Amino acid sequence: MTGWLVIAGLGPGGEGLVTPEVSGALAQATDVVGYVPYVARVPDRGGLTKHASDNRVEIDRSRHALDLAASGRRVVVVSSGDPGVFAMASAVFEALEEGPDAWKHIDIRVLPGVSAMFAAAARAGAPLGHDFCAINLSDNLKPWALIEKRLRLAVEADFACAFYNPRSNSRPEGFARVLELLRDVCEPERLMIFARAVSTLDEDLRTVTLAEARPEMADMRTLVILGSSLTRRIARPNRTEIVYTPRSVPE
Amino acid sequence: MTGWLVIAGLGPGGEGLVTPEVSGALAQATDVVGYVPYVARVPDRGGLTKHASDNRVEIDRSRHALDLAASGRRVVVVSSGDPGVFAMASAVFEALEEGPDAWKHIDIRVLPGVSAMFAAAARAGAPLGHDFCAINLSDNLKPWALIEKRLRLAVEADFACAFYNPRSNSRPEGFARVLELLRDVCEPERLMIFARAVSTLDEDLRTVTLAEARPEMADMRTLVILGSSLTRRIARPNRTEIVYTPRSVPE
Repeated sequence: MTGWLVIAGLGPGGEGLVTPEVSGALAQATDVVGYVPYVARVPDRGGLTKHASDNRVEIDRSRHALDLAASGRRVVVVSSGDPGVFAMASAVFEALEEGPDAWKHIDIRVLPGVSAMFAAAARAGAPLGHDFCAINLSDNLKPWALIEKRLRLAVEADFACAFYNPRSNSRPEGFARVLELLRDVCEPERLMIFARAVSTLDEDLRTVTLAEARPEMADMRTLVILGSSLTRRIARPNRTEIVYTPRSVPE
Repeated sequence: MTGWLVIAGLGPGGEGLVTPEVSGALAQATDVVGYVPYVARVPDRGGLTKHASDNRVEIDRSRHALDLAASGRRVVVVSSGDPGVFAMASAVFEALEEGPDAWKHIDIRVLPGVSAMFAAAARAGAPLGHDFCAINLSDNLKPWALIEKRLRLAVEADFACAFYNPRSNSRPEGFARVLELLRDVCEPERLMIFARAVSTLDEDLRTVTLAEARPEMADMRTLVILGSSLTRRIARPNRTEIVYTPRSVPE
């Protein structure tokens, strides 16, 4: 039996957003490895062993998955959203790089998924319809000063921004500091979208101005989008408003 | 009959990357509207009218789609990749904003897709595994000076960067200027990935250093990724190398 390792994105939560490619890999797997709530999304079946682990143990989980694949198992590491965006793909490659040489012979593939940022943007309209950036606001793995520097440069570049992990466990006051910084460099009318658990039953979407934004609008399941200076709203009489960024920037 | 308008992302090309949600919308549509090669990806069937148009007529196409939906048709506007990323969603909203009031009553939904940038990143490994940005290098709709400003700020922020439309029709020499600028501000060993037509039969992926990069490595079907200063390669004896960006930035 020849093992392999697939790092797959399950999308943001809705089953209609799981690609056929990912479903196909899960159907062939002997083992599924991942964070508890993502592993729980994979239906039980005979011949499939599920290995669910806690958050914050990404490297241990990666080593375990590589070890299983090296021993001949067909392993899918599951991520939410896209596995290459603040998710498991980089963790697996860190473990691979530091691990035994034998692991470098494993057949490894990354299967992309619908990212949380694009699912959230789609629900709002098209706020990321022009140049944009994505910043992880957690300082678990990088200095806080770097987050602040990137925020200032992103606003100076007038990117729309998608913020992942707005409320870090280790620094719950971080997002309040982010809002303070943004108020320093953006106009108060700048639009922000708080998109919680998009495509699940808990979905909640709220668009406010930067002046109206409050830290408690975000939690661990919220993806926050900051518009560019050109991002705007289209009001509609009997429907939800649309938020979008035009494709053009005038001279 | 109540019309609706769906703006759907078909993913980068492979059928295994089309979400069930998008397939479901296409199965219910009476009309499909889009750029010739994307409309060609939708199979013919009775009751489905296909409206294929040329590149560069996005606003006309959007008006046509809105008009069809307002008249009671079930319309899917198809984009490659994700429709909110340098694609049709913003064009439709521009047309909606400027159009007749009646259009504001139309049931409009955006269905996200697997973006070209994440499909390309997945093939290479995880080069966008840390903070990153996406910049459209075409100056059809924005001043060239803004592209240069954003490139410099993105490098200063040490984002990994995904570049869309590296070779603009109107300025074929643009990408040579981009490489010159990058050589000015990045070390020569900085990694670049040229990902052409990922997930199609024409797929071609090449990783080079900035010093080795040449303008002709990119064409209209190429997505270019510039690594951050931390992006690196993992060589593997009998397999293709992996390119990834670690999740951590040291103090």
